[in-house]
Amino acid sequence: MTDGPSHDDLQDFLTDLDAELRAEADWGTPAGYIPELADVAPDQFAISVALAGGRVISAGAHDTRFSIQSVSKVFTLACVLGRIGDQLWRRVGREPSGTSFDSIVLLEREQGRPRNPFINAGAIVTTDALLDGRMPNLALSEIIGFLRAASEDADIHIYAAVAASEERTGYRNVALANYLASHKNLFNPPELTLGTYYHQCAIAMTTDQLARAGRVFAGLPDAPRMISTERARRINALMMTCGHYDGSGEFAFGVGLPGKSGVGGGILMVAPGRASIAVWSPGLNRYGNSQVGTRAAERLARFTGWSVFGG
Amino acid sequence: MTDGPSHDDLQDFLTDLDAELRAEADWGTPAGYIPELADVAPDQFAISVALAGGRVISAGAHDTRFSIQSVSKVFTLACVLGRIGDQLWRRVGREPSGTSFDSIVLLEREQGRPRNPFINAGAIVTTDALLDGRMPNLALSEIIGFLRAASEDADIHIYAAVAASEERTGYRNVALANYLASHKNLFNPPELTLGTYYHQCAIAMTTDQLARAGRVFAGLPDAPRMISTERARRINALMMTCGHYDGSGEFAFGVGLPGKSGVGGGILMVAPGRASIAVWSPGLNRYGNSQVGTRAAERLARFTGWSVFGG
Amino acid sequence: MTDGPSHDDLQDFLTDLDAELRAEADWGTPAGYIPELADVAPDQFAISVALAGGRVISAGAHDTRFSIQSVSKVFTLACVLGRIGDQLWRRVGREPSGTSFDSIVLLEREQGRPRNPFINAGAIVTTDALLDGRMPNLALSEIIGFLRAASEDADIHIYAAVAASEERTGYRNVALANYLASHKNLFNPPELTLGTYYHQCAIAMTTDQLARAGRVFAGLPDAPRMISTERARRINALMMTCGHYDGSGEFAFGVGLPGKSGVGGGILMVAPGRASIAVWSPGLNRYGNSQVGTRAAERLARFTGWSVFGG
Amino acid sequence: MTDGPSHDDLQDFLTDLDAELRAEADWGTPAGYIPELADVAPDQFAISVALAGGRVISAGAHDTRFSIQSVSKVFTLACVLGRIGDQLWRRVGREPSGTSFDSIVLLEREQGRPRNPFINAGAIVTTDALLDGRMPNLALSEIIGFLRAASEDADIHIYAAVAASEERTGYRNVALANYLASHKNLFNPPELTLGTYYHQCAIAMTTDQLARAGRVFAGLPDAPRMISTERARRINALMMTCGHYDGSGEFAFGVGLPGKSGVGGGILMVAPGRASIAVWSPGLNRYGNSQVGTRAAERLARFTGWSVFGG
Repeated sequence: MTDGPSHDDLQDFLTDLDAELRAEADWGTPAGYIPELADVAPDQFAISVALAGGRVISAGAHDTRFSIQSVSKVFTLACVLGRIGDQLWRRVGREPSGTSFDSIVLLEREQGRPRNPFINAGAIVTTDALLDGRMPNLALSEIIGFLRAASEDADIHIYAAVAASEERTGYRNVALANYLASHKNLFNPPELTLGTYYHQCAIAMTTDQLARAGRVFAGLPDAPRMISTERARRINALMMTCGHYDGSGEFAFGVGLPGKSGVGGGILMVAPGRASIAVWSPGLNRYGNSQVGTRAAERLARFTGWSVFGG
Repeated sequence: MTDGPSHDDLQDFLTDLDAELRAEADWGTPAGYIPELADVAPDQFAISVALAGGRVISAGAHDTRFSIQSVSKVFTLACVLGRIGDQLWRRVGREPSGTSFDSIVLLEREQGRPRNPFINAGAIVTTDALLDGRMPNLALSEIIGFLRAASEDADIHIYAAVAASEERTGYRNVALANYLASHKNLFNPPELTLGTYYHQCAIAMTTDQLARAGRVFAGLPDAPRMISTERARRINALMMTCGHYDGSGEFAFGVGLPGKSGVGGGILMVAPGRASIAVWSPGLNRYGNSQVGTRAAERLARFTGWSVFGG
Repeated sequence: MTDGPSHDDLQDFLTDLDAELRAEADWGTPAGYIPELADVAPDQFAISVALAGGRVISAGAHDTRFSIQSVSKVFTLACVLGRIGDQLWRRVGREPSGTSFDSIVLLEREQGRPRNPFINAGAIVTTDALLDGRMPNLALSEIIGFLRAASEDADIHIYAAVAASEERTGYRNVALANYLASHKNLFNPPELTLGTYYHQCAIAMTTDQLARAGRVFAGLPDAPRMISTERARRINALMMTCGHYDGSGEFAFGVGLPGKSGVGGGILMVAPGRASIAVWSPGLNRYGNSQVGTRAAERLARFTGWSVFGG
Repeated sequence: MTDGPSHDDLQDFLTDLDAELRAEADWGTPAGYIPELADVAPDQFAISVALAGGRVISAGAHDTRFSIQSVSKVFTLACVLGRIGDQLWRRVGREPSGTSFDSIVLLEREQGRPRNPFINAGAIVTTDALLDGRMPNLALSEIIGFLRAASEDADIHIYAAVAASEERTGYRNVALANYLASHKNLFNPPELTLGTYYHQCAIAMTTDQLARAGRVFAGLPDAPRMISTERARRINALMMTCGHYDGSGEFAFGVGLPGKSGVGGGILMVAPGRASIAVWSPGLNRYGNSQVGTRAAERLARFTGWSVFGG
């Protein structure tokens, strides 16, 4: 097991990686279901690596904010586990789903208990558990507060226009939320939980900010101590088995790091004890995960030897 | 990240663990579908940890042979990948299945391409690929040879009676094999592939032998160099996401190590760079994985801090 | 093929049947999901047979109004086919579903096109097609008007309290409607279509009224000529294969008449050329169809020899 | 309700129909999975109508023998019900399947109890029940004997080459049979039941013979009295709801007669009290039912007014 490359070598690698990926110009297609995502130029890439010791090494558009979308689910999960602990697992499972992110089929088979907290249905339940009878702005403040504290950066906000747009077109999520409610696995009014959910997904961050926020899962010695080692380990396990929907096995196979992707093209990855990594490129592959982001993750993992499955 | 406990501390821990688990006496129920497995006394436990440096530290019935059953699938996979490489992935996927080990449903949805090489359908395809037109005894010699070389122990054999028993009652596997054949994803006659499959599952080993054989996946410096680092890493990733059927997410969450279970009650686990671990206890939990073995794995992971998701 | 019993024999049979079923006192359980249905006393039974020539022969509580619920779907279908004809079949299929009435699974498999117009999803699409951009009261007037004209009885109304109650608790239907909308198979706002749907289901009728209304499907010579012979035949075919959800095959096997059941305990049946029959008893069997009503239907079919599958 | 056309009118209609269908020349594609069926010229058509009074009126190639395939399932069902009565229904259901004829999915959901006796799994169970521990030739003699007696024609035989060909390629059916065996719903060795099943499917008949055999279900006064009125009625009900696999609803909707199709291009239909009808044309539509045969059935039903759902 190696400790990975030096700062300089890593900086050179990331700079080269950015150039290579731009040269390859195989960007995939941004999510098309709302204008705010569809209109993002696909030929963008950013990568940031937050290391033990406090350094963040970056390349590409690492100062550009993007909609973190489902990457937010990891942080909401951390907030909920901090609030109610293992009670959450009565309402949501911990197994990969074997289906696409917004499937309603497994939900029917499993009587309204989502398979894991990262598919849409499970994330809606998680948000519902965080809401806990409070007004949405309180729950959202908690998530934003967590992100700001974890990244030590107060400049993190919600893009209200993205949330509003999702709210207008999210029939599938309304279906999921009401289906959960029909199984009594939603405790707040569906529209309240969904409103919170859309706003949480509409948080905008740079890869620098996201990499710094992810340090709490990587257990870096100088990261803010916001969650216990055991909790971080378990959240990492969930990211490994369920973080990329029906492409989770593939990501584990090719990259070997726990990660969570979002439809906005962001991916957060954790190299336990070593680094927290954020990549972003808005074009998606067939699983709904960032195409260039996934490729970058594979190359970074190979270069650094940080795969949790052996150097 | 710690390097784990000293040899003495580990030995003490394993000895205590054996005593504790015996005291708890919550053994689960051995697999009931063939007499050879059903008749095994449930109150048995063994654990062996093969470490870098060559030491194997054990407790319990670590000299008792048990039927490794599906644990064999990891070794067959290693043999096949050595033989035909990534061609295998044309015939079998790399995603968790979200269903039980012998489900035929996903196979129908995915047109005869099993989701991964560890569910029964996928393991049958993998065995079929290893067979490759040869007589079964040649393929079986290859698997046995791999196990002997990896464990540096020639005393590993097949329990023919177990294979014969499975052959008599394995209607479900005959169904899977013929279903695969109907999708042209079986290249040898179903009965030949199944015969090979049953014999591979009927290999008997002790936990000491299994832990030593697993060193090739752990990348221990003194282990026989039989597979590349990259291949080991990828097989470990598959064990993490798919190694425990529909309990894989739970195992990753609770233990945090790549592992493969068998219905005979054995589990092989890999702590990359540190150790290869085998546990055995014949009673099963509701996922079909060893009940006491899973509990032992959780406690060992907590004690050692070997979870790949962070110490 | 016989022409069935005389009026007197039929009256005697129905009177005896009513007594028998009361004596058997095996009523099943009324639908429990809204108070208005759950609170109905289960030990009630009514049957009415509208014959060619204009006579209606009845027994039991044939003047008691009950919520016709899904029986309304046959009349809504007739209205829609009258309005837009075979265009409807672009949006909904004509095959039995093989699943329960409110399943969302097949909807996912078939990309948002419900299997038939009688499962909930298909009935929601049918109502949506009838609504056709109009205000709900116009569509509802059309259905009520159809029922009044068909039964030649103006005293047919909606129980607003039932509709309101369903609207408060119908999470599953909200899920279905939004799922349909996500597949662009709902043209009006989900809440508007659902409001119309709930009100149509909340129509209250007596078995006498319902039997008279059903004459338009039976092709009785003196019935109002509201739909063509071919259309009636086709609606009857749909009732035969899909009218009792996942108990449709059983109903065809045991009764042999096209029929449509409702969760309020009503069943409308058609004996083409001979009679229109309505039964009601609020307790349900495991398929969600009236338990005593189904039994009454079997005995009536045996007595009269009216099965379409041979006397 | 009319009694249908005169003999002369019917003869003229059938002759014209034959000419029309030939002119349209839209034949579909014969089943391709075995050479014996794939090599049949698709541009063939035959129709025979057996009427009360003993007349059989025909057109097209009504003396050409074809493989009746799944049409045999109706006769096997009649034999089994005669032998063991309603006990059969413990092992097989009476509901449409909502899936294709050889699906294994529902079988898994319903724990090895096929949905109905006409999908492959259900027909295999039915054949298994007829076999009942006897040698296959006894069961086959019973089916052939039934067909000869029903059609009053001794010249009905099995095409052994078709059976042998199916046996060589029938992986999917082997899968189904073994799956049933794994659920203990097969009482004879899978290969014995399947051998019987293939031979029963390989019976060759002309449409004249098939129409005459079907008279036992139509309850024609001069037909051999081989099954009771009630049994015929119930078999007809099953043909109506399940006789055309996942095209059953469509067939009921378009034709309105109970019918059973076979992959050899034959369809048997029953107009209770009036006629038994056989059509044949080897090209299939997307449901696996005869394309031209289905079209002929629709036109015949419209011409005669024999739909059970109203003239």
